[in-house]
Order: sequence, then structure tokens, then C-alpha cells
Amino acid sequence: MADTPIDFTGLACPIPISEYPHVSLAHGGGGKLSQQLIQKMFVSQFANEQLSAMHDGAMFTIDGARLAFSTDSYVINPIFFPGGNIGELAVNGTVNDLAMCGAKPLYLAVGLIIEEGLSMDELWKIVQSMQKAAQRAGVVLATGDTKVVDRGKGDKIFINTSGIGTISEGINIHPQRARVGDKILVSGKIAQHGIAIMSVREGLEFESEMKSDTAPLNELVKAMLAACKDIHVLRDPTRGGVASTLNEIAESAHVGIAIREETIPIEGAVRGACEILGLDPLYVANEGKLIAFVPQAYSNQVFAAMKRHPLGIDAAIIGEVVTDHPGAVVMKTRIGGSRVVDMLSGEQLPRIC
Amino acid sequence: MADTPIDFTGLACPIPISEYPHVSLAHGGGGKLSQQLIQKMFVSQFANEQLSAMHDGAMFTIDGARLAFSTDSYVINPIFFPGGNIGELAVNGTVNDLAMCGAKPLYLAVGLIIEEGLSMDELWKIVQSMQKAAQRAGVVLATGDTKVVDRGKGDKIFINTSGIGTISEGINIHPQRARVGDKILVSGKIAQHGIAIMSVREGLEFESEMKSDTAPLNELVKAMLAACKDIHVLRDPTRGGVASTLNEIAESAHVGIAIREETIPIEGAVRGACEILGLDPLYVANEGKLIAFVPQAYSNQVFAAMKRHPLGIDAAIIGEVVTDHPGAVVMKTRIGGSRVVDMLSGEQLPRIC
Repeated sequence: MADTPIDFTGLACPIPISEYPHVSLAHGGGGKLSQQLIQKMFVSQFANEQLSAMHDGAMFTIDGARLAFSTDSYVINPIFFPGGNIGELAVNGTVNDLAMCGAKPLYLAVGLIIEEGLSMDELWKIVQSMQKAAQRAGVVLATGDTKVVDRGKGDKIFINTSGIGTISEGINIHPQRARVGDKILVSGKIAQHGIAIMSVREGLEFESEMKSDTAPLNELVKAMLAACKDIHVLRDPTRGGVASTLNEIAESAHVGIAIREETIPIEGAVRGACEILGLDPLYVANEGKLIAFVPQAYSNQVFAAMKRHPLGIDAAIIGEVVTDHPGAVVMKTRIGGSRVVDMLSGEQLPRIC
Repeated sequence: MADTPIDFTGLACPIPISEYPHVSLAHGGGGKLSQQLIQKMFVSQFANEQLSAMHDGAMFTIDGARLAFSTDSYVINPIFFPGGNIGELAVNGTVNDLAMCGAKPLYLAVGLIIEEGLSMDELWKIVQSMQKAAQRAGVVLATGDTKVVDRGKGDKIFINTSGIGTISEGINIHPQRARVGDKILVSGKIAQHGIAIMSVREGLEFESEMKSDTAPLNELVKAMLAACKDIHVLRDPTRGGVASTLNEIAESAHVGIAIREETIPIEGAVRGACEILGLDPLYVANEGKLIAFVPQAYSNQVFAAMKRHPLGIDAAIIGEVVTDHPGAVVMKTRIGGSRVVDMLSGEQLPRIC
């Protein structure tokens, strides 16, 4: 490394170097350390209203057009998995980040970082499935960039997708908008993506195949917004799972969240796999699922709209926003007790998306 | 790898597998193989008017707003180099891609892929210089994403930046718009970035330090457009250098390009380094430089506007668009001969940006 004369602002690194001299996998896991890194290093340094919102994307108005703008890198291992591959995951993921801003996704940009030696055939399969996913979601892959790194300096392929969408008048979706009384809805069975990836990595065989739930959620969101324009919060509980997402919202809006374990939809086989693997499904990553915070008066309409959509047939109302315990998520367990559902700390499943 | 039932469209891979069964470094080098991969695999599969334009970014109108949208991943090695680091390079690079569309860059999204073990201190230096670069260019880092990959599965840090800018009425910059008679201008001395990186990699010492020319070009472009709104083409000759950029334009617009070697600005030390390293400076990467195709009637005004800007003081008129040899670039050499300047084939300098 060359010693370059960079003109530093004189600020000390906000992550205590003595405690964390190096970046660890947990800094990318979607849990506490990730949040610390993002908040203390990026948000504090880049300070601006878009970033501080800590949303799935930025929202702003250019020449009268209300836009959402989002980016996500996909580093999943393995790149092909039951139910999908890194290509469609990368398209669906950014489509969903835009949809979670209440936006209609329009254009995607694709950045490929390929490790020298990736088979041309695998690349071709990935490219084809990206195009299929884009068609399904109704977005245009408008621009791109390809880099190749030396063998051993990457891992087959990493894909970044960023996207632009438009937000209609009257839609105002933010994690900060969670309000006491809001009903909390989940669009389907949880923990499928994470368990599908884990089962491949660990070479586990289950009676029924575990498949990723990767899917574009923009049409489901459109149907929900048609039922109620004033949805307060939308989030897709990917890295860190439902638990981390709910904690982020509770913290952002400084409200308490109460959920009931028995109402949370989960496939029996997935629950069984979680038990075998020693994982709590609330912390396992999802891809084609969303969580919505809806004003109580509209919750039944939104719930009904979800149930009518193929990606929402297993939707459920899993809890509500409460005045108690602001900033915390508390779950009423199946056996009648209560437990605090904390944010994920450390790294449960590295490179899950 | 799991065998997933992907429903293929039945199309054969457009890159002959027998010839290129695997992706090679040259597929990311910005030359012939890169172009083949992009054209045959991505453009053909993702076919749409934005991508087919083969510009530095996509251009479209949303709700009346004319926008440019661009993405680029930075995988440069080493991540700190004389004159800059990967962070400011990533900000300046996407600012410049937007500027090359004639856009005013507004918002950037940042995707970090960090290798486990990167020192927190280096990350902090990179983050700080990204913020400084954003401030200098007048853009907001509005959203981001951080992934961490296992040690040995990345290379310290890769950064993707994508950006959005607005294009004013009456500006219409496209590689296809090169017209016979256009003057070709370059904004300054060429080949500095590539030689700076090479000198670090090869451990070469020169009398004067070789420094990268990374810089944001949006203000220079603004000054040029104030002198002539009808600039036909703008490009920053990064990977593949001036030669590859001119070839791409000649091919896009199906015109001939004639340049004169003696008019191309190059620092004596850089020329010397190129000779020692056996490199042709026309193929060496630049960062903070641009090439402009300007209608002849306005070329002197635009040239004067460039010379008045700190990033254009070494600007030069290096050639023009001609009726002869459509699709090809021909250079009149210093000794009076003529030679075809072909597109880079193979990989001259891997991971230069």
C-alpha cells in the first residue's frame, strides 16, 4: 500500500479500533454490529436527510418527480440454490427495496464483479434469469458495468443492483411512521430463504425440498396501496430476519412492538429444520416476504387485499404497535409467556443474500 | 452447487463456449473481449433502447424529469495509490459517468463489499475521502449497502457507486451523435492514472511522482455546455484509454476519426514511464479526463471554456471526424506516417479502476 497524503479531517474513527481493529463477518450480518457500523461510520460521516432515514432506499423529488433510489450488493453463497440463483435474487431484491418505499420500480442498473474463471455457461444462466426476473417485475435493466477480478480475489460472482422508481402522490412510507395502534402484517411464511440456503451449505436432506421464496413484491404492494394509501411502514425482512426488522422499526419510530408467536406463519418443515439447525426462525432471512404497519381502521382491507394476491395468500396479522416498552419488541409465546425479541447480534448466516 | 430446475429459454450461450469456456481477466479489460461480452451476452439478452445506446449511463424521462442513471464497480488494486484511494475514485467515477451524459449529478448510492479482515482504520479513511469527494462534486450520498465476505473471497474492498442526475432541456449527448466535421478535444494530459497505478504495483521509482488524475468533471462539463449546448459526444477515457474510447465512438456513430499524435497532451515523465513499461499511452487508463466531440463552429468557444477551468488548462484539439474509413481511428504519427489505432485487445492493465 502506498502512503498517500490524504488530507484527513482529523476525526477519529467512530468504531473503537481497540475493540474492532478489523471488519468482521458480523459487520455485514444485518444485526447489531452492522447497525453500529452503518450508524456510527456511514450515517454520521455522510450526514444527510435521505441517509438518516435508514430506509430501504432514499426518497427525493427531482423536477417535480417523486423518486425512490436504492442499491444492494448480492454476495450469496452458493450462487445457485433451490428456488433460484444470484441473478434473480439481485433483481427481485432491488425491486423489493423500491417497493418498500411505496415506489413503482422502473429502471435497474447492474454491476457485475466476476471472478476470473467463472464458467461462461453459469454466467449465461445468471444473465438469462436476471432478464426473466426483470420482465416478471416489469422493470428495465437500463445500464450496467462488468469488472473481472483475479482468481482467488472474488467468489464466482457478486452482483450489485441499484434501482429507480416513482412514488405516487399521497404515499408516505417510512419506518418512523409506525404509530401506536398500527396492525403489523406479514405477507407469508417466514424463514424459507435462509433455510433453503443453509440446507444446501450443510448438505442436509429434508423430506420436502426447502426452496428460497425469492419473488418481486411490487404488485403485491400495489394491491395493498390500492386498499389503503396510508400504509405507514413497509419492510422486507431479509438479513437478520423478522426480529431485526421489527427492532429497527421500533427504534426508528420509538414505539413498542407486541407480536404473538402463534400467529406467525411458518411451514412445518421449516420450523423442523430450524430446530435441527438450532436457529430461531425469527432471525432467519426472507426474500419474497414483507412486513406492513397499517392503521388499525384499514388493517382488514389491506389484509384482504394481500390474501387475494398469490404472494400474500399466507398473510397474517402478527401483532400491533403499543405504548409500552418503546424501542423494544416483545413476543407473547405459544406457552403464554412473554419474551423480549432482541436484534440479532453477531452473525447467524453469513452471505445469505 | 445445487442443481436447480431453472426454466431456460432454450437460447444457446452467445459467447462460443468452445473458445471461451470461462470468464478471463480480458473480459473486464475494456477492450475487444469486454465489448464482445457486453454486446453479445448482455445487450442482446436485456435488449432495450437505454442499454443499446452503449453510453456511460442510461437516459430517460420520468414524470417530465429528464434523468441520467449510471453504475460502476471499483475493484482497483491497490486501494490506496498516489493521488487518491478507491473511495474518491468511486465517487468521482460515477459523477463523471453522469457528467458524460450531460447531466448534473445529484444523488449517489454506495454498495460496499468488504473482505473480512479489512482494517477498520483503512475503511474509515476510505469513507472520509468518499464524503470529501461527494462534497467537492456537490452530490449527496443518499443510500447504501454493506456486505462482508469471508477472508480470501474478496480483496479488501470493492465499491459500487450508482448515481442519478438531471439533464437540461436542449442537451442531447450520445456517442451516436459524432458527425463529420466535429472537432475532437481532450481535457488534459493523458495516461496519468494508469501509470500511477502501474508504478505502485511494479514498485517503480521515478524522479517525479506519478499521481492519479482522479477528479470530478461535472463543473468542467457545465462550463463547456455554457459555451455550446450542442456538444455531440462526451466520454471519459478510463479502461482501455483514449484509443478504446475513440474506437467505440467511431463504431457507434459509424464515422471515421482522424487524430494527430503531436497534438495529444502527455507529460514527459508519463511518456518515459510508458516507454520503460512497454505501454502505448493511448491505451492507458485516465480518470479525471474527458474527450468531447464538438461542432466545428463552436470548437474554439468550447476549447476556450475548457482552458479557463482548472481541470482543462492542458486541453487540446487532437483531431476531427472524417468521411474516410468509417468505424476506424487513424492517427497521423509524429514522423509523418499514418497508423490505424485499433481497440485494445486482451488485457493491458487489470483492475485499474
